[in-house]
This record gives sequence, C-alpha cells and structure tokens, in this order.
Amino acid sequence: MTYTNFKGRHFINTQDWTREELEQLLELAIDMKRQPFRKSLANKSLILLFFNPSLRTRTSFQLGMYQLGGTTVVLNMGLEVWNLEVEEGVVMDGKAAEHIKEAARVFSRYGDMIGVRKFPDLVDWKKEKQDAVIQAFVKWGSVPIINMESHLYHPCQAMADMLTIQEHLGGFKGRKFLLTWAYHPKPLPTSVPNSALLAASKMGMDVVLAHPKGYDLDEDILKAVRENAALNQSSFQIVYTMEEGFQNADIVYAKSWGAPAFYGNWDEEAKLRSELKDWRVTQKRMQLTRNGKFMHCLPVRRNVVVDDEVIDGPNSIVYDEAENRLHVQKAILEAILS
Amino acid sequence: MTYTNFKGRHFINTQDWTREELEQLLELAIDMKRQPFRKSLANKSLILLFFNPSLRTRTSFQLGMYQLGGTTVVLNMGLEVWNLEVEEGVVMDGKAAEHIKEAARVFSRYGDMIGVRKFPDLVDWKKEKQDAVIQAFVKWGSVPIINMESHLYHPCQAMADMLTIQEHLGGFKGRKFLLTWAYHPKPLPTSVPNSALLAASKMGMDVVLAHPKGYDLDEDILKAVRENAALNQSSFQIVYTMEEGFQNADIVYAKSWGAPAFYGNWDEEAKLRSELKDWRVTQKRMQLTRNGKFMHCLPVRRNVVVDDEVIDGPNSIVYDEAENRLHVQKAILEAILS
Amino acid sequence: MTYTNFKGRHFINTQDWTREELEQLLELAIDMKRQPFRKSLANKSLILLFFNPSLRTRTSFQLGMYQLGGTTVVLNMGLEVWNLEVEEGVVMDGKAAEHIKEAARVFSRYGDMIGVRKFPDLVDWKKEKQDAVIQAFVKWGSVPIINMESHLYHPCQAMADMLTIQEHLGGFKGRKFLLTWAYHPKPLPTSVPNSALLAASKMGMDVVLAHPKGYDLDEDILKAVRENAALNQSSFQIVYTMEEGFQNADIVYAKSWGAPAFYGNWDEEAKLRSELKDWRVTQKRMQLTRNGKFMHCLPVRRNVVVDDEVIDGPNSIVYDEAENRLHVQKAILEAILS
Repeated sequence: MTYTNFKGRHFINTQDWTREELEQLLELAIDMKRQPFRKSLANKSLILLFFNPSLRTRTSFQLGMYQLGGTTVVLNMGLEVWNLEVEEGVVMDGKAAEHIKEAARVFSRYGDMIGVRKFPDLVDWKKEKQDAVIQAFVKWGSVPIINMESHLYHPCQAMADMLTIQEHLGGFKGRKFLLTWAYHPKPLPTSVPNSALLAASKMGMDVVLAHPKGYDLDEDILKAVRENAALNQSSFQIVYTMEEGFQNADIVYAKSWGAPAFYGNWDEEAKLRSELKDWRVTQKRMQLTRNGKFMHCLPVRRNVVVDDEVIDGPNSIVYDEAENRLHVQKAILEAILS
Repeated sequence: MTYTNFKGRHFINTQDWTREELEQLLELAIDMKRQPFRKSLANKSLILLFFNPSLRTRTSFQLGMYQLGGTTVVLNMGLEVWNLEVEEGVVMDGKAAEHIKEAARVFSRYGDMIGVRKFPDLVDWKKEKQDAVIQAFVKWGSVPIINMESHLYHPCQAMADMLTIQEHLGGFKGRKFLLTWAYHPKPLPTSVPNSALLAASKMGMDVVLAHPKGYDLDEDILKAVRENAALNQSSFQIVYTMEEGFQNADIVYAKSWGAPAFYGNWDEEAKLRSELKDWRVTQKRMQLTRNGKFMHCLPVRRNVVVDDEVIDGPNSIVYDEAENRLHVQKAILEAILS
Repeated sequence: MTYTNFKGRHFINTQDWTREELEQLLELAIDMKRQPFRKSLANKSLILLFFNPSLRTRTSFQLGMYQLGGTTVVLNMGLEVWNLEVEEGVVMDGKAAEHIKEAARVFSRYGDMIGVRKFPDLVDWKKEKQDAVIQAFVKWGSVPIINMESHLYHPCQAMADMLTIQEHLGGFKGRKFLLTWAYHPKPLPTSVPNSALLAASKMGMDVVLAHPKGYDLDEDILKAVRENAALNQSSFQIVYTMEEGFQNADIVYAKSWGAPAFYGNWDEEAKLRSELKDWRVTQKRMQLTRNGKFMHCLPVRRNVVVDDEVIDGPNSIVYDEAENRLHVQKAILEAILS
C-alpha cells in the first residue's frame, strides 16, 4: 500500500481526514499489528511534548517509533523545559521564558515530526476552544504535528477506539455506539468524548449520546457529528438517562466531563455533579445492551465511573483498546512520514 | 549457554532462584562484561517504572538494554504519570486516577518486560511488608517483572554484590561477609540489607550481621538467612558492636536502616539513632578485618556512614560494585527474555 | 579527516582548544550537516546530566547521538536523581544524599561520555566562578566531559554561533561582532556572553561589547578576550550605549545578565536594571549596522530583549543558530569519541 496523499499532513482531528483515508489508516494499523517491526522510519525522529501527564500515550509513541526504526525525544514542558508564551505580539516580561513560535521552529529544525499533548486549563472555554497551543505548532512549525490530546480533540484515542470496534464488531454500519457521561469526582475536559463522537459518526455508526441535563457538549462538535451522520445515512440522538442510552447498544463508551454552564466555576459545578453519582456503568445497565462491549480510554476510576464487575467482565475491551493505541499511532506515523 | 528454565520468570527476590541458577546468572554476567554488545534483545522493550529517584538503576538498565539491542521507556510515576491505586475493590474517589491493575495490563500489552522501583512509605511495616505494588504487577501483568528495589528486596543490587565478591575474593565458601549497620541522619528502608544477607548466605558465605540493639531486621528475613546457612553448612550470627563484627571479615558491607519498634514514629526513633553516630566505618575498624574489602550500594554519605579514607582507600570496591549492576542486570534481562 | 589529537578530550571552554582545532570542528560540523546519518558512534553512550531546564540542548544532544548510531541517557538532577554534594572532605549529614565523586566515577563506568548542564545559583560569584560541579566531573570522572552550560561557559552554544556566522558572513576576519547587553526582567548568568566573546575573538572577529555602566563582565574573561584579539591582530572594545555598539556591526548578538556589584543581592540590582528597559534591540538600531544579522542563543523574551520585527525580520538568523547546535555538537562528539 502507498498513501501518497498522507505524506506530510498533520494529525489534529479525524474530521480533517475522509472516511476512506481513516479506513486506510485502520488497514495499515492491522498490518502493523501483524508485523510490528519495520525499518520504515529509520533515521526519523518524533519529538513528544507533554504539557500534561500521560501513561499510554508516552509509552506507545516511544515504543512505536522504536519498532519502526526511528527514535523519540520526550520533553516534559514546564518541568524539564520552561513555560512557553502562546499569545502573539506580547511584551514577554511575565512568567514565560520563551515564545511557542521559537519552540515550534526550533523543534522543526531538529525533528521530523512533533507530538503535542496539552489539556485545557478549564478556565475559559471560549478561549480554550481555540486550541491555541497545538494550533501554534501547526502555524509556526514546518513538520507534521500529531495531536496527542488537545483542548478539543484526542484523535489517536479515537482511531484506537475505531480499530477496537472494527475488531470486535466486524464493522461500523448499523451498530449502535453509546457515549455515556459518568460521574467523576473532578470536572474533566471534553477532548475524548468529542473525538469519540466524531470518529464513530464518521465511520457510519448509529451514535447515541447520554448525559445529564446541563452536560451538553460544544455545539460545534454536535453539529459536525450530525453532519457525519447525515452523510452516512446513520443516526445521532441525545438522551438524558443512562437507561435510554444503554438500550440495544453494541458499544458502551463511558467518559466524564464538566458542565459547560459552570466552566471555570467548578466549585459551583461540583454541587450539581455530586448529585449525579448514580451515573455509573453497572452490570444491570449493561444487561440492557445488545451484548454490548464496554470501552473506556483509561485512566478510569473503578467503582465510580464503572463497576469492577463490568470492567473486569468478559465484555470489557478496554485493554484491547489501550493496546490499539500503539498500532494506530504507528500507522499514522508511517503514513505521514515514510 | 542456554537457560531454558529462566525464560519468562520474574526477578523479585534471589530466594526465588536456586543457588545454581544464581551462579549461572553470575557466569552470564561475566560473559556480558567481556562482550558487552549483543543483539540478543533486538526488538525487545523494557518499561522502567520509577516511583522513587534513582541514579545507577536508571542509567544501567537503559544502557544495558541498548547494549543488548533493545530499548527502554522510563516513566517517573507520580510526576510524568499520575498516582496509581493499589487496593482492590475500592471506590476510587480519592487521589489515585488509575488502578495499578490497568497499568500492569496495559504495560504488558506494550512492552516485553516491566521494571519497578517502589520504596516503602515508612509508615506501617506490617502493611508495607506485603510489597503490594510490585506484587500487583506480578499479579496483573502478563510479562516478566524485574524488581528494581521494592519495600522488601533489592535483588539486582544483591547480584551485583555477589559478582563483585566473586571477582575480588575468587569465591564465597569460607569467606566472612559482614553486614554492618551504620549511622545515617534519616531512617532508611531495609531492602538492601535484606537482599544482601539473603544473597550472601545463599551463595554459602559465613554471614555476620552487626547492628545496635533495637535495630533488628524482619524476623522472616532472618529465618530465611538461617535456612540458607543451614543448607550451605555455613554460619550466620548477629553481634551488637561493630568491633565484634569486623573481626576477620573479608567483606564489610555497610548500610543504615530505621529501628523497627519506632517504624512510622520516626521522630521518636531519631532520639535513639542520634546516639549511634559512632557506628561509622573507620580505617581503625577496617584494620580488624582480614584485609577486608569495603562495599556499599551507594548513594553513601561520606564521613557519616564511612570515612573518606576508607571509601577512597585501596580496599574500597564500591565502584566495581556499582559497575557490576550493569553486567548482572544484562544477564538477568537476557536470561529471562531472549 | 582524522582528528587524532581530539580523542578523549573534554569540551569545557573554547579557550582550551586552538583556533585551528576549532576550525576543524566547524569543518566537521559542515560535513555533519551535509551527511547527518553515520554509524561513527555505534555502541557509544552519552549520559546527559541536567541540573537545570533545557529545550535545545536536551533535544539536539539526544538526536545527535542517535544520528551517529549511539545512545543517550538523560537525567534530571534533583528531580529524578537526588542532590549531589560538591565540597570535598565534608561530613555529609545535610541535604545531599550522594557525593559528586561517586556520581562521576559511576557514570564513567557506565557511559562513554558525560554532558553536564549546571547554571550558577547567583549567590556568590567568587565561589561560583570556580565552576565546581563541572570541574568535579572533570576531576573525578574518567571519560570526556562535555559542558552543556556551566557557571562560566556555554561552549557548544559558542560553536553553533561561530558556524552560523561563518555560513552567513563567509568568514570572521574583519567582521564586527557586537555583543550587546539587553534588558530582561530577571538577572541572568554570564556563561553565554562569556563564551560568545571568547569564541568570536578567538576566531579573529573585531569584537565590541556594549553594556550599561555597572554591567561589566568578569575581568578574567575580558583579559582572555583581549589576548585573543592581540593574537589575531583584531580589535576588542567596550562601549556604554547601544547606539555606539550597533555602528557598522555585522553581527548583533543580544544577551542580558546581572550587574556584578549586586551579585546575590538582586533585589537591589533590580532597581538599577529597571531603568534600563530601553536596552532593547529595535529595528531603528539595526539600521545603524552594516546590514547586520541578529543573533540570540534562545530562549528570548520578545519585545523585551528584541522587538518582534527584528527577530521575525529577514536579518534574524536565530533559527539557523539553534539548528547549528545539533551539527556542531555532533562534530564535537564524533571528534572526541570515535
């Protein structure tokens, strides 16, 4: 297989790629899984910038590059490297010692690709929605940028999700993908639910989103999901109880996030959220599904988001899902870089 | 040489291995020292999890894998990666974002072997003695686990110690191994003394343990040391002054640890310990030995644990001991993985 | 080319090398730039010790060793590794858990070369001027030591600067190198200006140093610069306004540092410095030059040290300068180690 149209592209959001292209990446990922060791990226380097912690992402990208013959440099930003300024045109007399413009340009001189993980600060959604950090690397860098989870998206997770679904269900069409909100002691970002909805709808699944009232996802994301569904002649609906959502689901994908009306005002939000502890994936609810598989991007809080008996049960596919991070990322790297 | 019975095993405690097996590992280590560069672990990966700082361990495992053709991923837990929950069945609404069960299973999907360093918290010995973190990786992981120092054991250090003794004394039988307590401003864990005693007695040395009254090591460890000595028809005794211990010693191995009666109550223990500052390895005491060699696992506090003139003197073999970490670890990795 | 006289040497300060040797390193660096991938350092290892943060240094040394077929181990001192004691003969009952003597000797057993980054603490110049940490590695280690920026010098930066100047100006003789002080909200060390002046004067440039009264560099550095200039029959002068300095400059190299009379007493110094905010590289000042190129080691505070329009303008060569770190460092590593 050759993927001439993939070379040199960024991987920021699955929406930037056609369904056919994503299918080709999944095919290549399956191929990677069969034959993990290649020299396709010999002498190539990937610089991984972590503005936030990571377990799977860190490990799978490093080992993936090694397995393709290349290398990685891992940098913990703000810890091993100083803070970066993102705003343009400012007088830099504050905390940031370097502008992201310099970082993007210099890393582009050293490496062949840059991976960026930057969570939102959870202060001001309107501003954070601009995804300024990863967009600055796209703007100022001159090599492909890989999104390792930004304010808005986690496309590598979504690709691993899709590969896992394809492996377990055999395909996407006519299958019901439930994304359900779940309780969590802390307000979390929306990158994972955004990307899961976008990818599942893009691949043609019938998508259901279940969340408590007040926990709406961003309207622009929902609009794109609706458009994906329309193009695929599949469905998208939102329901406000877990029970409705679980009905006949093939996939139960659990994730928590904060209520948008209280964005940045999380002490207030905590009151609302604390009454939603029953939004938990239980065995009883799983019985409403069509022998549904349980998925979660991990890390997951056991017996808060999901009961032990579900995640440890035969229908849990969370470890395959985590493993598939490795295979899809290798496919993405090879397609973009080789 | 082939070591078919080593393949796929964990390396948690030297007691899990027979004396003959440990001797084979030492032979392989000598071979590694002669021929450092191999491709025996090409395409293999070792994931190194550090819950605590490290200098020698970190460096020697990384370079060891490189020299065998493989690769490493290093993760600083709690810093680059979030905290892990160890208890089973709990409702995870506290500080830990992920359960160690997921971590162990996911790392097992990515890498071929997992190294774990986790010191005790020095709060509750009865609980910490369970060595819960490393045991959880053994329980939930599906790849070999290497102990890079746990609550109870530091077997890679002990193997380096044995290689060093073999090189400098030519063998173990009939040689007197003194493990002596030494003063230190802080209460330290017992993993190093435990493993040193277990390994020296297992290899057939005559073992003497010297410590102040009140600084007993765990009774289960001492029992195993006595059993080792009985099997080897060698001796094990405990003495309560340095002077007695140093008499005719071939090896003086110094290490500090906290008094068990005050475990977790260290402010009280500090009073007792502060009167023991004379427990220091001096040149005068070394003259009581049989041209004894000075050993320490490092890091060591100079002029507190040992005088400059001893550690800098001709009978100090601490650098050979540190170097041998590299060679024995490579032997362990190759034996288990290739 | 063979560089038999380079093998096994330390790289601490460009002054330790002859002009001819530095020219040979620059030639080798140009060669590296043309042919980046070699196996000249296969099986070799470089241990990188960071006592301070880094972006370019960390990335370029790691990728450089990879491109030469070798490997690196990166250690964040004080974070992943405990604090090291530097003083000799002390009773180590304080904060430091290990003496630098042990660290230097042990790393020398594991790796083929050690890189050290250690900034001054900015407390006591007389003491810090001894450059104790890097000198301890030279003294106690038994492998070549690479200075990745010490209290006194940043020679890898200086070599990248010289390569960049050679590429953009075609040579050094008769070219005017201006090192100009610039305002910065914090007092900074002098390693970069020291090494820039030493290298530019050594290579035969006409050197001008511009700084406000009270911002003198160390007299021993200035003496060496004067000697370099005398040997090369080139010039060295100090001026006290930016305007004088910029006249006919071919290179404008900007950098900030603290006033030596207030060393360690920085709150007092801040008053003096706060009146020097006009010491900023502006387009208007650049027009005084001979089509001068703008250089900075980075990180740089935009619109504080230099205006956006200068650093983003056609005469800014800061990205070439950053990229050249990679090429000169590879040349140094190969020359010393292969």
